Amino acid sequence: MSARTHKLINEPGNIVDEMLEGFCAAYSDIVQLGGDRLVLRAQPKALGKVGLVMGGGSGHEPAMLGWVGRGLLDVNIVGEVFTAPGPERILAGIRAADRGAGVLLCVSHHEGDRLNAELALEFCEAEGSDKVDMVILYDDVSSAPKGRESERRGTAGLFFVWKLLGAFCEGDVTLEAAKALAEKARDNTRSLAMSLSSCASPVTGEVMFKLAEGDMEIGMGLHGEVGMGRQKALSADETVDLMLPPIIDDLPFQAGDEALVLLNNSGSMTLMELFILYRRVAVKLREAGIRVYKSWIGPYATTLETAGFAISLCRVDDQLKALWDAPANGAYMKQV
Amino acid sequence: MSARTHKLINEPGNIVDEMLEGFCAAYSDIVQLGGDRLVLRAQPKALGKVGLVMGGGSGHEPAMLGWVGRGLLDVNIVGEVFTAPGPERILAGIRAADRGAGVLLCVSHHEGDRLNAELALEFCEAEGSDKVDMVILYDDVSSAPKGRESERRGTAGLFFVWKLLGAFCEGDVTLEAAKALAEKARDNTRSLAMSLSSCASPVTGEVMFKLAEGDMEIGMGLHGEVGMGRQKALSADETVDLMLPPIIDDLPFQAGDEALVLLNNSGSMTLMELFILYRRVAVKLREAGIRVYKSWIGPYATTLETAGFAISLCRVDDQLKALWDAPANGAYMKQV
Repeated sequence: MSARTHKLINEPGNIVDEMLEGFCAAYSDIVQLGGDRLVLRAQPKALGKVGLVMGGGSGHEPAMLGWVGRGLLDVNIVGEVFTAPGPERILAGIRAADRGAGVLLCVSHHEGDRLNAELALEFCEAEGSDKVDMVILYDDVSSAPKGRESERRGTAGLFFVWKLLGAFCEGDVTLEAAKALAEKARDNTRSLAMSLSSCASPVTGEVMFKLAEGDMEIGMGLHGEVGMGRQKALSADETVDLMLPPIIDDLPFQAGDEALVLLNNSGSMTLMELFILYRRVAVKLREAGIRVYKSWIGPYATTLETAGFAISLCRVDDQLKALWDAPANGAYMKQV
Repeated sequence: MSARTHKLINEPGNIVDEMLEGFCAAYSDIVQLGGDRLVLRAQPKALGKVGLVMGGGSGHEPAMLGWVGRGLLDVNIVGEVFTAPGPERILAGIRAADRGAGVLLCVSHHEGDRLNAELALEFCEAEGSDKVDMVILYDDVSSAPKGRESERRGTAGLFFVWKLLGAFCEGDVTLEAAKALAEKARDNTRSLAMSLSSCASPVTGEVMFKLAEGDMEIGMGLHGEVGMGRQKALSADETVDLMLPPIIDDLPFQAGDEALVLLNNSGSMTLMELFILYRRVAVKLREAGIRVYKSWIGPYATTLETAGFAISLCRVDDQLKALWDAPANGAYMKQV
């Protein structure tokens, strides 16, 4: 199948600014638009709390702008489509998130994001600020083998880290404790994605990659990064049976563990398909003795209108379960 | 462009049952699966409250199963793909929603749904039950002219009615008052949709309708019902400028009014596009003197993976604003 190349936009060069104006107008009770394309909380966090800031390219909405709000992130630095924001803008984001108790810069692991984040932190050091730190987040088991986890990409499973860390930093915690919590959430999270079809850039109209109708590829990244090879698309149950073992075996998740589960929609999968896929995930986790604590199914970290999905698991203990259940109010992440 | 004909399912004949098993397993803290493909609240509403039940074909997820829960619906009767459930199953749904204070059957206006609902109500009458009533809901301005509102289709704008009515029926209200509130919400709601591309049936693999890449059609129904004709796709701003006046002029919404706004994703529109579209909606409403009370942007009443969207407005007074802000906890509708 072909991707939809016609997009409902105005000028391609205005996409990000117009998107941010629309988003912040629609959810003005939750977010406000700062300078430098920063999405800020409408009501900033109290003074004396650790600030959380995260940058990233556009095209993955509602990630991460939908996660700015109470119990979640303080600032999202929004880049051009699939392009990391530069170090000066990251620095502006760090300053906007500063509530006097330090700022943690969360980086979804991609080369450009990491390099720009490191440069921004050098700027902070040069200014004499010792209250800024960064944490590199990754979860995609297909992007590097076990033992080389830190080389992996950040993908949909960071969903868990943002929520858990956001809840943690509503409390009176130190920057060091916040970083340790982010690492704990990350180190208990694993994801694997698959795609059935590509998307087209709203800027150039070009299709990201080609995949024949009826074929699928397992292990692709959030920007169409190559995965573990292509094959004929399988049934829903067969697809889950292929994708779940590499996730479970990697941590490994074991009988008796409790886990949060996410089925992330890359863009244009139907909920009908995702519910059918979830059904099999639940069966296989039960067989493995892994108890599901809570589940979420929907478009959280998309790649425009790509047809595909990811399975993400996060092993939780009592601390993480309590943080998961804590209230949150972002435009696209609400915990009642 | 072609629609994605390959779906991640198992047996086409098992789609609805497997979808419901997966959905109810994923959100077991909110819903439970009853017999007759009924989606029920995990914790039923207290005795002595009016029950709310709504049926409809599948393929529009998260409508309406994602709206079962506290502050929302009590029972959703799920039909085959794009097919209304039969009268016997509607009757089962009415019985399941009965908490002793009467049951209101909400019907999204389509011929099949209305006929089956009327038959179910005849069964209730034959049983001697006088505590069941029904309300026909419609909102699509393109499907019949002003003055013949009751001939119009039910589409995405019913989003507002479900939430407002759900909040109302958490209180100690009568069946008559519940019906009156549903009619008030409906009579203040107007919608208009557009499509850029079609979807393919997961059952037959057949494409619902054909639309050339770069063309659009305004006014299509939730099942691809024909709209107001095809034309070359316009820019985002031009599209809003074409769609908003027929909505505003129909009620009419007037300067000084307050309104809830929904931009509903028919399936595979990107949030990026919807935010850009919303930006223009906000500008034009401001110019018309209509104040936006709250906005929602996302996939609420889909047509599988159709690329398209609808604009819905609901005029609100103090009563409706308070009902809108009341807490709700459905799998896909949360009010914090």
